[in-house]
Amino acid sequence: MYGLMQDHPLLISSLIRHAAANHGGREVVSRLVDGSIHRTNYATIELRARRLAHALTSRGIRLGDRIATLAWNTHRHVECFYGVSGMGAVLHTVNPRLFHEQIEYIIRHAEDRILFFDADLLPIVESIAPQIGCVEHFVVLCERAQVPKSELLQLAAYEDWIAAAGEDYAWPQFDERTASSLCYTSGTTGNPKGVLYSHRSTLIHALAASQRDGFALSSLDSVMPIAPLFHANGWSLPYACPMVGAKMVLPGNRMDAASLYELISGERVSFSVGVPTIWTMLLAYTGEKGLQLDALERCLVAGTALPPAVQKALKDLHGVTAIHAWGMTETSPIGTLSTPTPEVLALPEDQREAELLKQGRVPYGAEIQVRDAEGRVAPKDGQTFGPLWIRGPWIASGYFKGEGGKVLDADGWFPTGDVATWDELGFMKITDRTKDVIKSGGEWISSIDVENAAMSHPKVALAAAVAAFHPKWDERPVLVIVPKDGQELSRDELLEFLAPKMAKWWLPDDVVFVREMPMTATGKILKAKLREQYWHRLE
Amino acid sequence: MYGLMQDHPLLISSLIRHAAANHGGREVVSRLVDGSIHRTNYATIELRARRLAHALTSRGIRLGDRIATLAWNTHRHVECFYGVSGMGAVLHTVNPRLFHEQIEYIIRHAEDRILFFDADLLPIVESIAPQIGCVEHFVVLCERAQVPKSELLQLAAYEDWIAAAGEDYAWPQFDERTASSLCYTSGTTGNPKGVLYSHRSTLIHALAASQRDGFALSSLDSVMPIAPLFHANGWSLPYACPMVGAKMVLPGNRMDAASLYELISGERVSFSVGVPTIWTMLLAYTGEKGLQLDALERCLVAGTALPPAVQKALKDLHGVTAIHAWGMTETSPIGTLSTPTPEVLALPEDQREAELLKQGRVPYGAEIQVRDAEGRVAPKDGQTFGPLWIRGPWIASGYFKGEGGKVLDADGWFPTGDVATWDELGFMKITDRTKDVIKSGGEWISSIDVENAAMSHPKVALAAAVAAFHPKWDERPVLVIVPKDGQELSRDELLEFLAPKMAKWWLPDDVVFVREMPMTATGKILKAKLREQYWHRLE
Repeated sequence: MYGLMQDHPLLISSLIRHAAANHGGREVVSRLVDGSIHRTNYATIELRARRLAHALTSRGIRLGDRIATLAWNTHRHVECFYGVSGMGAVLHTVNPRLFHEQIEYIIRHAEDRILFFDADLLPIVESIAPQIGCVEHFVVLCERAQVPKSELLQLAAYEDWIAAAGEDYAWPQFDERTASSLCYTSGTTGNPKGVLYSHRSTLIHALAASQRDGFALSSLDSVMPIAPLFHANGWSLPYACPMVGAKMVLPGNRMDAASLYELISGERVSFSVGVPTIWTMLLAYTGEKGLQLDALERCLVAGTALPPAVQKALKDLHGVTAIHAWGMTETSPIGTLSTPTPEVLALPEDQREAELLKQGRVPYGAEIQVRDAEGRVAPKDGQTFGPLWIRGPWIASGYFKGEGGKVLDADGWFPTGDVATWDELGFMKITDRTKDVIKSGGEWISSIDVENAAMSHPKVALAAAVAAFHPKWDERPVLVIVPKDGQELSRDELLEFLAPKMAKWWLPDDVVFVREMPMTATGKILKAKLREQYWHRLE
Repeated sequence: MYGLMQDHPLLISSLIRHAAANHGGREVVSRLVDGSIHRTNYATIELRARRLAHALTSRGIRLGDRIATLAWNTHRHVECFYGVSGMGAVLHTVNPRLFHEQIEYIIRHAEDRILFFDADLLPIVESIAPQIGCVEHFVVLCERAQVPKSELLQLAAYEDWIAAAGEDYAWPQFDERTASSLCYTSGTTGNPKGVLYSHRSTLIHALAASQRDGFALSSLDSVMPIAPLFHANGWSLPYACPMVGAKMVLPGNRMDAASLYELISGERVSFSVGVPTIWTMLLAYTGEKGLQLDALERCLVAGTALPPAVQKALKDLHGVTAIHAWGMTETSPIGTLSTPTPEVLALPEDQREAELLKQGRVPYGAEIQVRDAEGRVAPKDGQTFGPLWIRGPWIASGYFKGEGGKVLDADGWFPTGDVATWDELGFMKITDRTKDVIKSGGEWISSIDVENAAMSHPKVALAAAVAAFHPKWDERPVLVIVPKDGQELSRDELLEFLAPKMAKWWLPDDVVFVREMPMTATGKILKAKLREQYWHRLE
């Protein structure tokens, strides 16, 4: 027997309709790629997104067609989130920082029919244009007068498309399980794989992520997503902000401290999301200039572990609570959040701080499991580490076009590729990536813990701990180090420094000094390459 | 094309599973009907709810069967919320304060197969037992030793059922549109009608209601539902608290100020929900005893309009923010909430306070419309009043067994039966019930506004403004007054008092003084009866 409740599919268009009807005048402030500041509001964004949907429909775009964006955080990108998904097409957000071959690959793989891009990214688009024959229209996110010259391509102006499309378009209704957006993972091995979100997963995720123990979003907030909108749904903010009627502040492509600070201060930003390096940079800037982070109350930090000193400086110097989070493209992206529970607040101060530096606990909707080497659920002891699995309505079940094959286990759990511990308070801590962990004599060594210890040496610029083959122990750690410019550092000096910081059997068997590390386009060390290179180092 | 995200139905059992796994030790404190305090936690509640589900299954209860509760706010009632709905049966919460004939009617109408009830309610159960042959088991929510004697009925102890059922029961998975619970409206006319909630509507509602601009629920909260769990899903708290891991404090059947205060103070209650009279009573009690409402931060007030003096006293004397809300059984129940937006905070103080005394704005998910006399959408001017309509995934589409026929209009809107205004800030204010509004010469007079003005006279105990037939104006207001004990009040004295408080044409044409009002079982004035009685008063 069914309930007798109204049947409204959870559609992305309902978010911007809600914002326009109830928070129509709330500002959305953007820094455009020319550096100028642009102001609009939700009522206007809804209208323009509707015109965009109309423009797409009239060009033959249908439910399920893929439309790419190669764009920074601006109001026009937000309009694409609603115009494209709202009409039933799939918004494919492409990361402009990928290698050109990767961008080409994923646009071809997605079979994108239209590419919207910011004017400063024309060189990328021109360089791959001959290879992406699937794209029928190249549309620059600007006014006609700002469209750059191109010998190669016929470029349309986004504003011309919007102006030409009529307002007589009603958001269509369709199944909430319909695909809404597509984001490729930038793996360190193999080709990128596409995660295909649905309207349903996006909305349940936005509702769960914005709860008080999550982003705690309110209509009184001014929210700046520093994390790019093209990363994993922009940490849900393009959806969650209109949902609660929060002001949005979009920093465009200016990621320098002065530009970001100007917006944080001028637009009274109360909540922001970014990787730890952004916060380190802003702390250095405000420290140097003697400035305060003004209205900022809390920030969400993810991507890599938050250094304790950064968390402390944000709190002590600026009154900003840093919330640690963990997630990935495949998890929409929120997996866990380090907001306190009564049990955490009851801990002595140093334990409490350590607990809140972990990646945190699941909101309602997500379930996690840490498993041990035998595949059993690991004890919640904060010590035992093993592969992390996750499950829930906003977690991927597979990849676009079946890439990577069957992904989930028999009980529907997704393997995150991370190695973690969890404790009796429910807090999870990432200790490594599955493929990077070093298996020594049947026991596991966290490469990340070894690297973090090495990175705390004042002469170390970069550190990578990788497994090398060992005849007795199977694998033993080798440490690869890039010293800071002009610094001399010896193997023995470093090992002596590390000895008191870890179990004796975790100490690297060798240290290699190099000038530079092999890196991915998104700034991660290519540890797979190092491992290949040093695999026979200890023989 | 569908998204490639995991398929997890939104089921009520997932809430208690989440709470047990992530907030297993969080307390649930109850005052039992014998006055004693009982402590348990979410891990135990989940286990016992699973045993209850097992007990029901082994007695042949199947998906869609109705199971009634006649019970106060205790942990056992919460267990029924999960055990019954979690196994796929329908939890029918019956209001013990209804007239016995109404209770009998709705249990027969629902065809309840089992009745769980609190021991003190045995007299009601015995009085209707001969008429409710559908009920196969009468189960008292207590230990075996506490089961009261009954000549008439064979009574089982809830604790015996729980103890006998094994733990080897896994929560079943089924369609999220499956009916989960049933609550009858206590209309002032006609038979009660059943609202049939679904798992999906209940979960989307809980996610939306607990947002920061709603209940703002956190795992750090200690939440006391003073509003009964049998009213409209207990204002979602039996679902929303486990969802975020908030502590629950359940006051049982002791609604006196001393008992409630003891729990608010002793259990550090930070959030509570109740009707205005509860808060008036608690303010009087704390004032008299020189007490503070301690940890209480915010309270949700609904049912009827919150007197400004109560809102002010809560804030000024106790630092408690009163959030005004509007809803009804058919709306799960949240329709609107009076949490501030930036535009409201920017108003001068007196306007801001007036704005926050309105019933408020919709959270994401709900849509409202005020329509004018011609059925067009009324202007958002805060003046024009007309019927209020509502739409959304947690709003009823009809009533159980088709009672009341087709309810929604062609565009899927539900007629609330309320008359309201809305303003440009999105805030809605209830001005009357559709059936009580007085239509004078084509214009509408709010009976509630006239009554509130009369109630502000120091000698008035109760006031009701009803329409009487008028040969020229069709209808004109007649005011029915119960003076306070021992007070003398004349017609002219009252009309003079009212004159400066309303438009001249709103002034009642006559005043009738009576000893008592006809009332419903839930304490509402039966205005339909008064209208019938005084319809020819002005001829």
